[in-house]
Amino acid sequence: MSKKIVMKFGGTSVATPERIQHVAKRIMSQKLSGYEVIVVVSAMGKTTDQLVHLAQSITSTPSKREMDMLLATGEQVTIALLTMALHELEVEAKSFTGSQAGIITESVHRNARIEEMNVCKILQTIENGTIAIVAGFQGVDIDGEITTLGRGGSDTTAVALAAAIHAERCDIYTDVDGVYSCDPRYVTSARKLEEISYDEMLELANLGAGVLHPRSVEFAKNYQLPLRVRSSMASDEGTLVLEETEMEKNQVVRGVAFEKEIVRMTISYVKPFNGSLAKIFTTLAKHHVNVDIIVQSIQEGIAPSVSFSIKNEDFADAMAVLQQEKDALGYTSLDFEAGLSKVSIVGSGMVSNPGVAAQMFDRLRVEGIPIKMVSTSEIKVSVVVPQEQMVQAAEVLHEEFHLHEVLENVN
Amino acid sequence: MSKKIVMKFGGTSVATPERIQHVAKRIMSQKLSGYEVIVVVSAMGKTTDQLVHLAQSITSTPSKREMDMLLATGEQVTIALLTMALHELEVEAKSFTGSQAGIITESVHRNARIEEMNVCKILQTIENGTIAIVAGFQGVDIDGEITTLGRGGSDTTAVALAAAIHAERCDIYTDVDGVYSCDPRYVTSARKLEEISYDEMLELANLGAGVLHPRSVEFAKNYQLPLRVRSSMASDEGTLVLEETEMEKNQVVRGVAFEKEIVRMTISYVKPFNGSLAKIFTTLAKHHVNVDIIVQSIQEGIAPSVSFSIKNEDFADAMAVLQQEKDALGYTSLDFEAGLSKVSIVGSGMVSNPGVAAQMFDRLRVEGIPIKMVSTSEIKVSVVVPQEQMVQAAEVLHEEFHLHEVLENVN
Repeated sequence: MSKKIVMKFGGTSVATPERIQHVAKRIMSQKLSGYEVIVVVSAMGKTTDQLVHLAQSITSTPSKREMDMLLATGEQVTIALLTMALHELEVEAKSFTGSQAGIITESVHRNARIEEMNVCKILQTIENGTIAIVAGFQGVDIDGEITTLGRGGSDTTAVALAAAIHAERCDIYTDVDGVYSCDPRYVTSARKLEEISYDEMLELANLGAGVLHPRSVEFAKNYQLPLRVRSSMASDEGTLVLEETEMEKNQVVRGVAFEKEIVRMTISYVKPFNGSLAKIFTTLAKHHVNVDIIVQSIQEGIAPSVSFSIKNEDFADAMAVLQQEKDALGYTSLDFEAGLSKVSIVGSGMVSNPGVAAQMFDRLRVEGIPIKMVSTSEIKVSVVVPQEQMVQAAEVLHEEFHLHEVLENVN
Repeated sequence: MSKKIVMKFGGTSVATPERIQHVAKRIMSQKLSGYEVIVVVSAMGKTTDQLVHLAQSITSTPSKREMDMLLATGEQVTIALLTMALHELEVEAKSFTGSQAGIITESVHRNARIEEMNVCKILQTIENGTIAIVAGFQGVDIDGEITTLGRGGSDTTAVALAAAIHAERCDIYTDVDGVYSCDPRYVTSARKLEEISYDEMLELANLGAGVLHPRSVEFAKNYQLPLRVRSSMASDEGTLVLEETEMEKNQVVRGVAFEKEIVRMTISYVKPFNGSLAKIFTTLAKHHVNVDIIVQSIQEGIAPSVSFSIKNEDFADAMAVLQQEKDALGYTSLDFEAGLSKVSIVGSGMVSNPGVAAQMFDRLRVEGIPIKMVSTSEIKVSVVVPQEQMVQAAEVLHEEFHLHEVLENVN
């Protein structure tokens, strides 16, 4: 029995017939190196946007079921064209819609979760030496209704297939060549990581480092399936995501992430809260305002208050809702500070290194960067700082934790 | 139990979001007039051409299976958008791919025949008062492989569904407003027919009057399902196609059809044929040259010969094949005459009126139009004439058989 691998290519990688032909060559060399290959693809380039636009020209409130029916065509076009491109290279290949690939989901449209994988057809195909080309992002419920998996859906398809067929690995081909210690567009000393753990990747994905969708990382972690993030254009190895990395023992902090356009809102009361803390966040959630960091302070002699951070794009909604509900929420004053950003350090090694947060705060103090809010998890420390100092903060933290150095030198 | 009806809209009728919205209104009024409605649609406008073009940019020899996978997306886009447009009018509707509609075909790609109709889901849907919007042209084989039905496939889907659910009628909405006694673009006195029989329609469809695909007419005839050909823009009744028309008794000839760009080829021998007649047409068929009329003449004292008509577009292939196979076929000379056309009169009444062909030939003689070849069936007489006299021939025959007159006056 040969080794099995799943290769996933995103929309940019298959945006034109020429790129599809390029991807076909990548697939052929993987096959020639002795693997049984399953490929998962997204819709070509802007296809999904165009389909959404078509729907919008008909109605502003399309039914979710019909949107799934519409959007599922995007990946179906790609699988047919990519299969033709492989045939043109004289490589055996066969395309599968989500339904044909046996991806059974719950009966929910636009954001369905996978419930079952009936992979016998796909397995038969690849064991015969034929490459299976599968439409990402889509599945089918037990009644044969077409469903889609929501954001990052093609990554989820790829990881779920890889887990179901016990693939050696799932390679996610994308327009970046791996996961970096920091965003290289801002911090020039950023270094590509050879390996990273699922948990670290999850923190980075959730922090907006955006290479992989958190859902697919969670899935991979659950099945202990190694993922590789790599470029569809360059040929290097990219970054391997797996349970525990060799390097973990040597390095406390693995990466620095940041996110722009944060607003801090502060709600103050004259007397202690009266159950209204829960009420605030329930009200905001009901209006789809996503709250990130929450800090509350109750001190003798000072009016109690709660601060929380949201994204700029949610600010108008948040203000409107909170002012409207002022009486119900029973607060005295509502303040905000815009022009902020969030900078985070991530690393599994923090769990056993209690001094990391202190080291971070101290370096920021030395550099004269004020800290507006703090949030921590077992493998992450986030601070909210002024946006004009965001890149400076990322740079000094990147240096402080030796992320620019090759790993062997660290200790 | 309500009356059931199937409405079919072609690619031109759904070419833009605006036209889709217009079609949605047509469907709504049909529903409001008390019918349970199934709608069958084609891909929007030039979508199929665009998909074919995409495939051609990848390979000149796409696999038939992958072409079906690719092309089936076209109708899937239309059903989703049309369903959304109906929802926008607050009409209950639900889309179905060919597979979801239970259209089971043989395991052949590009030109599959329907083997089975599992209409229980569709029936349930319309009996609940919801309009079923079905993707035309496509089906699925017993292994779940996506197949397509070939040319005129959406008409076939519509007729097959109508037959399976015992619909009162199948309405084919198109860009002409019915079936005419002759092509009105050439013969200004052409009159729209209120009714026409399946057999007449079949002859007209095969003769290139091209409103309905012959396969769907055959299907309707087998199931004795009334068809109506009508305009998707205008609101008139169009032409009803059914088994036997009221008017049939009154009118011998129902229509005049014609076809341009015909070549007559003549092959001569020095001695009587030696089994090579069959050989000629087998050879041509093997090279996909479509032969229409065949005339052979063997007269004492004259070299035996066979003439046949083909389309201009097949001429180069036919010449190449016949010259290449000259020795094998054993003929002496090969001649051809280009610049010809075929003019036909069609009518079920001819069976019992043996003088019709003579009347046709005589009128053409009087008009000085030479007849190059003749072919007859029970309800049709075709003649090959010079192309520059094609329209004249159609006009005089149209007049000769009183096709411009209202029916009550004919006798």
